[in-house]
Amino acid sequence: MISQKMKQMVEQSAAMSAMFTEGKRLAAIYGAENVYDFGIGNPNVKAPASVNATAIEILQNMDSLKVHSYTDSSGIPAARKAIAESLNHRFGTNYDESNLVMTVGAAGGLNVILKVLLDAGDEVLTFAPYFGEYDNYVMNVGGVLHPVPPNPPDFLPDVDALSACITPKTKAIIINSPNNPTGVIYDAGTIEKIAAVLRQKSAEYGTDIYIIADEPYRELAYDGVEVPYIPNFYENTIVAYSFSKSLSLPGDRIGYLVIPSTVSDFAEVSMGAAIANRVLGFVNAPALQQMVVAKCCEETTDVAFYNANRELLYNALQEYGYSCAKPQGAFYLFVKALEDDDKAFCEKAKEYRLLVTPGSAFGCKGYVRISYCVARETIENSLPSFKALAESYKK
Amino acid sequence: MISQKMKQMVEQSAAMSAMFTEGKRLAAIYGAENVYDFGIGNPNVKAPASVNATAIEILQNMDSLKVHSYTDSSGIPAARKAIAESLNHRFGTNYDESNLVMTVGAAGGLNVILKVLLDAGDEVLTFAPYFGEYDNYVMNVGGVLHPVPPNPPDFLPDVDALSACITPKTKAIIINSPNNPTGVIYDAGTIEKIAAVLRQKSAEYGTDIYIIADEPYRELAYDGVEVPYIPNFYENTIVAYSFSKSLSLPGDRIGYLVIPSTVSDFAEVSMGAAIANRVLGFVNAPALQQMVVAKCCEETTDVAFYNANRELLYNALQEYGYSCAKPQGAFYLFVKALEDDDKAFCEKAKEYRLLVTPGSAFGCKGYVRISYCVARETIENSLPSFKALAESYKK
Repeated sequence: MISQKMKQMVEQSAAMSAMFTEGKRLAAIYGAENVYDFGIGNPNVKAPASVNATAIEILQNMDSLKVHSYTDSSGIPAARKAIAESLNHRFGTNYDESNLVMTVGAAGGLNVILKVLLDAGDEVLTFAPYFGEYDNYVMNVGGVLHPVPPNPPDFLPDVDALSACITPKTKAIIINSPNNPTGVIYDAGTIEKIAAVLRQKSAEYGTDIYIIADEPYRELAYDGVEVPYIPNFYENTIVAYSFSKSLSLPGDRIGYLVIPSTVSDFAEVSMGAAIANRVLGFVNAPALQQMVVAKCCEETTDVAFYNANRELLYNALQEYGYSCAKPQGAFYLFVKALEDDDKAFCEKAKEYRLLVTPGSAFGCKGYVRISYCVARETIENSLPSFKALAESYKK
Repeated sequence: MISQKMKQMVEQSAAMSAMFTEGKRLAAIYGAENVYDFGIGNPNVKAPASVNATAIEILQNMDSLKVHSYTDSSGIPAARKAIAESLNHRFGTNYDESNLVMTVGAAGGLNVILKVLLDAGDEVLTFAPYFGEYDNYVMNVGGVLHPVPPNPPDFLPDVDALSACITPKTKAIIINSPNNPTGVIYDAGTIEKIAAVLRQKSAEYGTDIYIIADEPYRELAYDGVEVPYIPNFYENTIVAYSFSKSLSLPGDRIGYLVIPSTVSDFAEVSMGAAIANRVLGFVNAPALQQMVVAKCCEETTDVAFYNANRELLYNALQEYGYSCAKPQGAFYLFVKALEDDDKAFCEKAKEYRLLVTPGSAFGCKGYVRISYCVARETIENSLPSFKALAESYKK
């Protein structure tokens, strides 16, 4: 007999993992090349060559005992130092290894920091649409996620709506820019407004409100748009980063938390993060991967590849009559469904062998997410299907 | 402001991680070679050569996209199949990939299965002395760990005491054999008695009681002693396994859960485990490591090395007047402290540059754990200190 909560999760498990399975099922029937799976954020750009070369070099030349042993709960000091220096260089910060905690991806990092900050019943905010797992991550530690309502059609945060959502129980707000699922990047002015509201409400309630900046898509920005570095705008910011996208290492499960020395109760938050890594069962981020990203953290993925995918798909969908905000980052389009019910629209899309994710999985009905981190041919070959799908609604 | 629970954890954080830091501090003062750190279970035997060779082969020859991509939440099917077949061959079972879930070590596996099974307030039992992290793992999902009192001096489970601890809220019992910290292996007769009690109480209360067999030390058995395979004794057994010790890969964070098809509500437990892997932020066990252990799962570590350490240290301690049950497995001695207060004894030991862990960290006061997975010279060089420590109590 499984737990009541897990029973619900099994039932709701929904969009993300169902999509994964559905893609395989349709591929088995129609052939993989005839199914256009835009459901999953699995990068289609290879990791930089230096990643494998570095891993091989470590495995060949380093003392095997050291390669495979437990690391400190917060990670290998030299790896944390290398990343701290890279961040200092890029963002004018002044971090050292004490500000970094290596984690099992950003997902691990988010669970760690929520475990540190939240008591049962505490509230976390985020702007809808949002990555649906946030609900689970917050629930894991007994907290409650309150989404700030979506702000279509450009999906920039509605800061007044944020202000109205803050209560004395608000411990944190998760900000995800470049955003999954919209691709929107929050500009400096928006971040400043958010920071001002948080400062005002913290003062009003006598509380600390942390920004948790979930930044797996930081390096994926197009058209020369800059992604503001949120800790430089708001002192109580903790960053959760992942190399899943920037180095195309999603299966490797490697990322980090940045805990600036300026955050409230820095020493406790920092020690708590190391403890949380241990007690949540991560123990340490995978050791080999820590060493690899320490050497490769200044590398980045082939942003031009994603950009070409973005242009191709965005322009085609515009032409076929779909509407969507042109994304400046990440690798998703968030497109208005052609009927009110986004789930029904996704079912309809399947008839055209198109797999897309309903917006309701991101707290925003009436839209669908199209993940364009796929092979170029997938997009090219899918275009007639997108066209036919649009035309089926014009009849 | 961190959470109240985490505040307690920061305060209690205690033995395990304090030991780690303390070793480094003393090593800095006296030189690493003059500090005898028996505190941590970090194997001192290198991973089999095939591990690094396999990893390099994968990194050199396999499609890089596949090496680094997300895997199914429950793990790569081929890896699960390879391990299932290895288990079938060793234990006469009939598993396939549907019975395996790849996890971030046994620590990850335990958190996953507890997340699946427990509602808030549910109870989990374990025999003291026990790995202190069980308290945290159970607490993570709102459950309560009730230790069955220790049964010195041989530390075999007291099955009558177990029976008295079972209530209608008992969801599971964690069994850890070979045991950390005692090194005791539970024989077949003992497992049968435990199974009988669980069946009787399940029937009496109309509940399912699962055994969670935490088996990171399975391969570390000495004197030809066989470690009974608990699923063959009790149908509701789930195994949490780790390659941390068997292949000396603790930093790699790779292990698995075995969920036999015979467990109650198999389909839900199995699907729940995949979901729990995802929502707890593990997402998937590290992909490269999954592929490596799939190829190397029939390899094992140098048990003879640990056995020689065991004989050397056990015999010396006996000679100096310490008393302890001779361990048949794992790589720990659980030794009676030479004064009632085990923490005071550990402090006294530090004066002799000996780092050992108080039994109270394992729910068993008056004893200390000595981890002998260290270099041979560490044991050899430490013996005068152990002797002098014993003599200091005879004055």
